[in-house]
Amino acid sequence: MRPSKRAADELRPVTLERAISKHAEGSCLVKFGDTHVLCTASLEERVPPWLRGQQRGWVTAEYGMLPRATGDRMRREASAGKQSGRTQEIQRLIGRSLRAVVDLEALGENQITIDCDVIQADGGTRTASITGAWVALHDCLEWMKSRDMIKKPVLKDHIAAISCGIYSGTPVLDLDYAEDSTAETDANFVLTGSGGIVEIQGTAEGAPFSEEEFGQLLGLAKGGISRLVDLQKLAIL
Amino acid sequence: MRPSKRAADELRPVTLERAISKHAEGSCLVKFGDTHVLCTASLEERVPPWLRGQQRGWVTAEYGMLPRATGDRMRREASAGKQSGRTQEIQRLIGRSLRAVVDLEALGENQITIDCDVIQADGGTRTASITGAWVALHDCLEWMKSRDMIKKPVLKDHIAAISCGIYSGTPVLDLDYAEDSTAETDANFVLTGSGGIVEIQGTAEGAPFSEEEFGQLLGLAKGGISRLVDLQKLAIL
Amino acid sequence: MRPSKRAADELRPVTLERAISKHAEGSCLVKFGDTHVLCTASLEERVPPWLRGQQRGWVTAEYGMLPRATGDRMRREASAGKQSGRTQEIQRLIGRSLRAVVDLEALGENQITIDCDVIQADGGTRTASITGAWVALHDCLEWMKSRDMIKKPVLKDHIAAISCGIYSGTPVLDLDYAEDSTAETDANFVLTGSGGIVEIQGTAEGAPFSEEEFGQLLGLAKGGISRLVDLQKLAIL
Amino acid sequence: MRPSKRAADELRPVTLERAISKHAEGSCLVKFGDTHVLCTASLEERVPPWLRGQQRGWVTAEYGMLPRATGDRMRREASAGKQSGRTQEIQRLIGRSLRAVVDLEALGENQITIDCDVIQADGGTRTASITGAWVALHDCLEWMKSRDMIKKPVLKDHIAAISCGIYSGTPVLDLDYAEDSTAETDANFVLTGSGGIVEIQGTAEGAPFSEEEFGQLLGLAKGGISRLVDLQKLAIL
Amino acid sequence: MRPSKRAADELRPVTLERAISKHAEGSCLVKFGDTHVLCTASLEERVPPWLRGQQRGWVTAEYGMLPRATGDRMRREASAGKQSGRTQEIQRLIGRSLRAVVDLEALGENQITIDCDVIQADGGTRTASITGAWVALHDCLEWMKSRDMIKKPVLKDHIAAISCGIYSGTPVLDLDYAEDSTAETDANFVLTGSGGIVEIQGTAEGAPFSEEEFGQLLGLAKGGISRLVDLQKLAIL
Amino acid sequence: MRPSKRAADELRPVTLERAISKHAEGSCLVKFGDTHVLCTASLEERVPPWLRGQQRGWVTAEYGMLPRATGDRMRREASAGKQSGRTQEIQRLIGRSLRAVVDLEALGENQITIDCDVIQADGGTRTASITGAWVALHDCLEWMKSRDMIKKPVLKDHIAAISCGIYSGTPVLDLDYAEDSTAETDANFVLTGSGGIVEIQGTAEGAPFSEEEFGQLLGLAKGGISRLVDLQKLAIL
Repeated sequence: MRPSKRAADELRPVTLERAISKHAEGSCLVKFGDTHVLCTASLEERVPPWLRGQQRGWVTAEYGMLPRATGDRMRREASAGKQSGRTQEIQRLIGRSLRAVVDLEALGENQITIDCDVIQADGGTRTASITGAWVALHDCLEWMKSRDMIKKPVLKDHIAAISCGIYSGTPVLDLDYAEDSTAETDANFVLTGSGGIVEIQGTAEGAPFSEEEFGQLLGLAKGGISRLVDLQKLAIL
Repeated sequence: MRPSKRAADELRPVTLERAISKHAEGSCLVKFGDTHVLCTASLEERVPPWLRGQQRGWVTAEYGMLPRATGDRMRREASAGKQSGRTQEIQRLIGRSLRAVVDLEALGENQITIDCDVIQADGGTRTASITGAWVALHDCLEWMKSRDMIKKPVLKDHIAAISCGIYSGTPVLDLDYAEDSTAETDANFVLTGSGGIVEIQGTAEGAPFSEEEFGQLLGLAKGGISRLVDLQKLAIL
Repeated sequence: MRPSKRAADELRPVTLERAISKHAEGSCLVKFGDTHVLCTASLEERVPPWLRGQQRGWVTAEYGMLPRATGDRMRREASAGKQSGRTQEIQRLIGRSLRAVVDLEALGENQITIDCDVIQADGGTRTASITGAWVALHDCLEWMKSRDMIKKPVLKDHIAAISCGIYSGTPVLDLDYAEDSTAETDANFVLTGSGGIVEIQGTAEGAPFSEEEFGQLLGLAKGGISRLVDLQKLAIL
Repeated sequence: MRPSKRAADELRPVTLERAISKHAEGSCLVKFGDTHVLCTASLEERVPPWLRGQQRGWVTAEYGMLPRATGDRMRREASAGKQSGRTQEIQRLIGRSLRAVVDLEALGENQITIDCDVIQADGGTRTASITGAWVALHDCLEWMKSRDMIKKPVLKDHIAAISCGIYSGTPVLDLDYAEDSTAETDANFVLTGSGGIVEIQGTAEGAPFSEEEFGQLLGLAKGGISRLVDLQKLAIL
Repeated sequence: MRPSKRAADELRPVTLERAISKHAEGSCLVKFGDTHVLCTASLEERVPPWLRGQQRGWVTAEYGMLPRATGDRMRREASAGKQSGRTQEIQRLIGRSLRAVVDLEALGENQITIDCDVIQADGGTRTASITGAWVALHDCLEWMKSRDMIKKPVLKDHIAAISCGIYSGTPVLDLDYAEDSTAETDANFVLTGSGGIVEIQGTAEGAPFSEEEFGQLLGLAKGGISRLVDLQKLAIL
Repeated sequence: MRPSKRAADELRPVTLERAISKHAEGSCLVKFGDTHVLCTASLEERVPPWLRGQQRGWVTAEYGMLPRATGDRMRREASAGKQSGRTQEIQRLIGRSLRAVVDLEALGENQITIDCDVIQADGGTRTASITGAWVALHDCLEWMKSRDMIKKPVLKDHIAAISCGIYSGTPVLDLDYAEDSTAETDANFVLTGSGGIVEIQGTAEGAPFSEEEFGQLLGLAKGGISRLVDLQKLAIL
């Protein structure tokens, strides 16, 4: 039924590989099937100008795609001279999602930048990014803890994300590119480990959708994110 | 209770003033209380390069704020040399929302650009923009119809948008700036005249929210958008 | 004779509406016929870096046009990524004109930015901008005075501007777009309330003009600006 | 009296050296005292897109300053990533001035670009540029004539420019930097060989000026430009 | 002696992993020790405008670094809005080097773009890029051959690159970051499989170097590149 | 044999004219035949932020070409909004070359910027730039010495540069444009007065070159640079 033969509520194979960068304070290569994203956490012992002197830290994110991460080569944003609206939208979403589970005061006057670079894309790059970014952030905070740079817990919960959509009339979990490009409805959900909703973005690509359909998508997302959080727990053991 | 003394499900005073531009094929000055947005529809008898020769048209949107639309003056984007991520996010949302109710084939090889320029901001500029943009688009299509440029109905339905949020623990409709800046949760809903959902964007600003809370927000939005659609109908009489 | 049937020395209907912005310290919606410009004055209690520590303030201006202010939609400068030469030329002119009647030392270490945004254009946007900007600046200074932020008079005089041109061989006052686009000669004059000349810009669009013709244009301008200054006086009563 | 000891109506030593570029179709190194500008005319046998198919040509200009043309080094515009408002204002002025004496139809579908690059600056770079640009343009047209690329006269007249100002209360001709930076009033005049006025730009730097003062400046300019035109005639003998 | 304990003429462990991209027509992950570069070859069946209609193809390269490829996070070039001089220098070098062994006529009117993205940096990113790019290019050409898109051999030879330098007075091969940042002299060599020199870039970082020293570096490079070419041959077996 | 009839080891006529700028602390107009470059040295009594407080100075360079320095007019980089990769490559080379003979500590916390602007190009602009830049730098340092701004010698040696290439199978010195555009191999050499090598850049434009050929080019370069250094010595007498 689905191009990948998956069940409606089945995630693609997900892996979270830690410490894949020689330099970064925390890092994770996350794979949702053929979607591969390299997440690194970089610590700076200072905060942006607008936050100075407030005894609080900051967590932010940047997102990028290698030009041939996609089926057709896309123009390199560095060469085009600007980031697309899509890129900015995604990196703002990643940053907001992470901050939802961070105690910025406990972080002290430090900034952590999570870079999510898509090595290969097959749909769901933003949800894979958020899921992997949490692991990179976690490891960066462990790095700080081991150096006594933070005293109190900074991470308040897990955060993970998944897409759902209505494909050929059926609500399905974790759309790959083949599904994403033809789905009638596409929604992204960001939830905490305890099931709280942090972000919902739903878009009707074709016909508008109903409240009931949306409820089904949210139900699928809850199940999927619960499994992603389990995988995060395993990864950081 | 609310800073504006409004009931939880009460919209701000909304007005939709048509034909306020000497030049544009369609235009609307929309006010949601102290939020004022000037929407103009501009017709071009050609389509973007990637759409040529497909017998279809295109509807797109651009969004901007006058520098002193806000409490503190913001830097002019033309002078900064680029549009912010927020601006791009909003104009992409407006365009998608409008296209959800447009029959692009019936439009023929024409492009309509809706410019939404915020003259004064007090929260909810994107929802006011979408609601007013529909009127400007409607009038542009009437202009075309009166010149026999289109033969079949292009507009399939109404489209309108409203924000909801949880303010001091209570779900409320149509946040103004005083509420928006302190709300725990902020969500924007774009619905058609027949109640179909086109876009949902929900963000937890503070604590994550629950599925039940989200349902309450959606309920408020449905009521509010139903009234906005009534106002659109009155406006185009 | 003139497309608008006006007499050669007749201004278009001019209105100056104050306090049209909820946020700005001073504001004015100026209309010269179908040319409508929204002027806001924004106060900052600091000066640009190159002026620091000199016990003087600064007045500057920015100018913009909504994309569909004109007959054909123009590309949004924020999206193009830069301001055109014309835009920069005009905003530099507005700033210079205002500073000619401001005592920058009396202003103290404060900066006032006047934004002139053209809502609708029908010729003469720069002259309308200067004329309306003076009112917005005046009101911003009143706002400061009422808060004891300034002790001495800052405004030394009125400033207003008008265009003149040779249309079909006849010198005429206050060109609208229909005249401006075909005039042989186009000149802009900026004068103080006491009749001193602050800026003159004259351009032969077709054949060069003579000293005598230029004298006639200046004569018309003096009459027109005298009436604009009267209207400013009425507006701030 | 004047820092340079010149009489009030005395030009700086002016030289116009032709054919100083190995590559350009026309070129001129113009010196107004210590202000040195290299003008080259470059021919292209095509016109800008907006002019195609109209059997007319185009003349345009670009202006630049070497970073250390001035007393203090200025940032290189190529490195800053944009041309300043002043640069754009000047190059628009040069282009307009030249076109005032060119028969664009006689030019055929060709474009001539005049580059005016300031090698050394000591006030009056825009007036020197226009005066030298005319010579470069003349020689480019001769080059075309000798190749039968044009049949009818393209140049209708000479064009030259000079600044005047009120310095220490006295109207003076051709301001150098020492005068320009302290003059109360600064005006630039562009006139044809037959004395027609093409551009007037007058600015009060300090106190506003009167009609009478402006008349004196124009009188000085006429005398100065008459001598510049004589020098152009000598140069092209 | 060397921080890595390597002999003076010893390469770091080099691996060339092919077909690591799901989408690209050719790809290679090249590792020179801790320097990891992802090379993809993207085919387009058209050439740049300046090459159209000449029955020839084009090979070009782009280079980038992930922000945290380095010890300290570097600003993302897409966010900075431009590529650094260093980036442009490197990508021009990669492109020139590859074209030295490509028969552009045999390629037909096709363009191949090689993207070299540094996942992790430890010195020698440009030499690793060239060495891996050759493999990606080779595989892209095989892809074309298997689809009958090319008839004659396009690749004329191998191309590979290595750095050499004088470290603590001793000429050494394949500098890592610890050596590169303190070497007195740093040189990059690009050679063909048959030993022809394609590019030499030598820079004295401290004291100038002598012809004899340069000869020693070239000798080391020849040996190193010979081994790299052997590894390329093994990789494409 | 050579288009210019020069012997294989013959430089073009070289002149170094000092003090050609009224404003710069040091300046030199260098001519290598028809290649003319204006070099100015500008002193600032401060260093870039990353060098502050280290009791050291900095020498840097910028490079530009007037748009019609070349046979066909090239787009003005200031108008294009960015410097090309070639421009950046050259200005980085000039800066590195000069710093190789400067004692940055003896310079104190001062920065000298050398601007090399190509007035006319006929091949070899980068080598002429370096050769002339040394003279401008020298004179700037003399200017500082005469004002007691430096106590110890700052310049450690001469620096000069020349290109060599293989033209029609023969190694030749100092390529002009006619040779450069068809040479099989093109190399630039930067050497000190005492013969030390500072930079070598060799590129095979056609077939790869051999070690022996490269040795011949280096031999030619040594002879040529020795003569350039003699000319520098004469120039500063």
